[in-house]
Amino acid sequence: MSEATRAATPRSVREVDRFDLETDVAVIGFGSAGACAATEAAAAGAQTLVLERGWRGGGTSAVSTGQIYMGGGTPLQKACGFEDDPDEMHKYLVASCGPGADEAKIRLYSDRSVEHYHWLTGHGVPFDMGFVDYEVSTMPEPGKSLSYTGSERAWPYREIAVPAPRGHTVQNASGEVMMQLLMKAAQDAGAAILTGTQSETLVVDDDGRVVGVVARVGDKEQIVRARRGVVITTGGFVHNQDMMRWYAPDLLRCGRTIAAEDGDDGAGIRMGIGAGGAAIRMDAACIVLGFAYGNRKNIRGILVNTRGQRYVNEDVYQSNHGEIALKKQDGQVYLIVDDSIYEPTPTGMDEEMFTYPVAAVAETGKELEHELGMPENSLSHTLAVYNENAARGEDPLFHKERCWLQALDNPPLAAIDLRVGHAPYSFFTLGGLRTRPTGEVLDTDGSVVGGLWAAGRSASGIPAQGYNSGLSLADCTFSGRMAGVSAAGAGD
Amino acid sequence: MSEATRAATPRSVREVDRFDLETDVAVIGFGSAGACAATEAAAAGAQTLVLERGWRGGGTSAVSTGQIYMGGGTPLQKACGFEDDPDEMHKYLVASCGPGADEAKIRLYSDRSVEHYHWLTGHGVPFDMGFVDYEVSTMPEPGKSLSYTGSERAWPYREIAVPAPRGHTVQNASGEVMMQLLMKAAQDAGAAILTGTQSETLVVDDDGRVVGVVARVGDKEQIVRARRGVVITTGGFVHNQDMMRWYAPDLLRCGRTIAAEDGDDGAGIRMGIGAGGAAIRMDAACIVLGFAYGNRKNIRGILVNTRGQRYVNEDVYQSNHGEIALKKQDGQVYLIVDDSIYEPTPTGMDEEMFTYPVAAVAETGKELEHELGMPENSLSHTLAVYNENAARGEDPLFHKERCWLQALDNPPLAAIDLRVGHAPYSFFTLGGLRTRPTGEVLDTDGSVVGGLWAAGRSASGIPAQGYNSGLSLADCTFSGRMAGVSAAGAGD
Repeated sequence: MSEATRAATPRSVREVDRFDLETDVAVIGFGSAGACAATEAAAAGAQTLVLERGWRGGGTSAVSTGQIYMGGGTPLQKACGFEDDPDEMHKYLVASCGPGADEAKIRLYSDRSVEHYHWLTGHGVPFDMGFVDYEVSTMPEPGKSLSYTGSERAWPYREIAVPAPRGHTVQNASGEVMMQLLMKAAQDAGAAILTGTQSETLVVDDDGRVVGVVARVGDKEQIVRARRGVVITTGGFVHNQDMMRWYAPDLLRCGRTIAAEDGDDGAGIRMGIGAGGAAIRMDAACIVLGFAYGNRKNIRGILVNTRGQRYVNEDVYQSNHGEIALKKQDGQVYLIVDDSIYEPTPTGMDEEMFTYPVAAVAETGKELEHELGMPENSLSHTLAVYNENAARGEDPLFHKERCWLQALDNPPLAAIDLRVGHAPYSFFTLGGLRTRPTGEVLDTDGSVVGGLWAAGRSASGIPAQGYNSGLSLADCTFSGRMAGVSAAGAGD
Repeated sequence: MSEATRAATPRSVREVDRFDLETDVAVIGFGSAGACAATEAAAAGAQTLVLERGWRGGGTSAVSTGQIYMGGGTPLQKACGFEDDPDEMHKYLVASCGPGADEAKIRLYSDRSVEHYHWLTGHGVPFDMGFVDYEVSTMPEPGKSLSYTGSERAWPYREIAVPAPRGHTVQNASGEVMMQLLMKAAQDAGAAILTGTQSETLVVDDDGRVVGVVARVGDKEQIVRARRGVVITTGGFVHNQDMMRWYAPDLLRCGRTIAAEDGDDGAGIRMGIGAGGAAIRMDAACIVLGFAYGNRKNIRGILVNTRGQRYVNEDVYQSNHGEIALKKQDGQVYLIVDDSIYEPTPTGMDEEMFTYPVAAVAETGKELEHELGMPENSLSHTLAVYNENAARGEDPLFHKERCWLQALDNPPLAAIDLRVGHAPYSFFTLGGLRTRPTGEVLDTDGSVVGGLWAAGRSASGIPAQGYNSGLSLADCTFSGRMAGVSAAGAGD
């Protein structure tokens, strides 16, 4: 692990007596953001060198399911019969990526999302022209790449923006294949890739401008001069316990990280801070509590806290439920289902990851609240009101979509244990360096740190706070491209 | 305003051709943290220079009510007949200042709190040996300095640590008098005070060590050499809109800041970041929703969200209610009271600040929920259950203390509007530079930034997240002292 690396202290160029390598643009990291940055920088005519500490690259993107959030009328959306519009996409993302959504980044991406689709497919990234039935699954299926991967149809979002499915999952849900193609694209564009190369810190000149990178290959220090600048794309910081403890301590309760085993240790964020960059929204995270991944019918159940109160419409997206449960309900929640809903094991999913413990089973709401140690007349009242309304196709409390409404009147009832520590809460960090939409790193005064760009999860991006599946890969690939173009255009 | 100041970029000592002033320790800011730092540094034998941009100093502490959280068995606690213990204080603070409370800081302060009391009174800070009746008020009264200013008696805290009142309010609740005494202490100890002096950025040497301050007096730049180091004590960042937007956007909804008009613009935090310091917990804040300040009986009402659900015991402290309401209930809450509780205007408090609008009045719970646009059988059920239990002296949902339990059966009922935007949510920021308990600023790697200390609200301190009244002044005065002692002892 590179936690021992003193990334936060840049090296002064005065202390550099020789550069071992020279390039126009140095890209640190070869995940999806790095590959896209390198491709664009090289395509724009800049000599481009990627420094990757692993033996080949890929990062967390290579172990992902390859979901990319795109919209505004992509060929896949059209092929599946969905209309979409950049303005509706923009409205939805501003509403769901806050508080304090980065509207400039969202605007740029909404406007260029169709172009981004063509860019990706132009590099061979494959999508299948089919739509996954919303009521059955949101997970990719053979031959079907399009799905809802956010809360577009859920209240209140459906009243804010016209819903459209925007999850574009690469063929076979293979983040690995996607990364092979994106890494190949970088090489085809002419970027040079140095693997097994651990970047340790940045080199700055007397004006504070970033002019290079101190790297290590085995025991040997390699100092890279970057005439136009450096692009940081080393991912987030879930694997850095010290950063987690100081920036986002409540996430330590989650237990399960979403990250490549040897990645996301915050090295790039620390290098950027050391060179003067501001790190923002460091408490933000995508926290997945995927209670309906393995059994979509679970959305017909009700989520309650330990007082037996419902607290959210169950049809908001799975990647929001973790955040809502952890941050607003202290991670103390249950899913109540009846016998018509309950499935002991998940369908088509990782059993270990998506089998949730059952906290209690009972014939009536009264018995169930007693079993769960809830106050009398709490859960039983919630159930009675919910059932009465659901039978009429209504949910006056949270406006769950009608297709999910059914009275829970088929005993026995079960309480699925979604309390943190009992059920898996999987997360990755969303906070990082403050950047312009074009990737320039900004300091705490809002000034550009000369010679420095950041992209992907090393930056605070489109999913600044709040999340929809596919947004991280969308942001990584697109912000990588923006940073690569911008860095290539910088004078030396 | 100094928002235009480019605080985040330190100046290299190579660009400094002369120092206008030299000292051992430079203290930036002359609020309570700065005054205490300067006093201790000077008392330890260090030549000490305070740089204050106002015409005399005082900062936000001078406009406060002078509540200082102290315990462990202070003379005031003993005089009022209360026993306390550093271990119980430590347990309570760890539980209430999280998630991720800084246990080392809390331990040090709990152990030294009695000594701190003597230090303050030794410098003339006056306390009156009386206890404010918990059921009538928590605000200072003539002749009574001791009060509960936290949730010590509220569930679940009373089960975690033995409660004791720890709010020590200076005589006449005069933060102004307290600051006059603390500023005098610094001068008496031999610190030199430069007022009207705007610190702009830090000076660093080639090793990144902080060796001075660039300041401005009128049009003239004054560069100060600090042989042992610089202590940053410029407060928080509530008045810096750019920082608020990027670090803590949801707080922008609060509307009312708690800060000196010309202070807390984040200048010191930005200087510290520029010199390599990590800024942590930047989303954290004390958010006061003081619904019971002007009428303590209001605690006998019930707080409900817009679904008519209770969500907290109403007897947790006022400075916690704002955070809970804003962050966990989206700022959409009401206080429901009956005619035996309701008072149209606050008693002994700022009317403008503590008069809350009434959203609805009705004879029954059913009517009230209808008036408020809540779903049928929501608030009315909550009221029925609450009343039935309260009549028995019980609160199975949230264990509100028995002295606050009474059935709300004296119509008419009123819903006091505590929604954000309708009621004042007053706040100040708690995030800042990461420091050791002794004040050394740490970078993102956890290494000390040489020559740099921070204290008070420029640092993330004891109230890292979560708040009790009096903790900020406690932390400012104590962390100021620690930083002053440590900086004075640093070699030059």
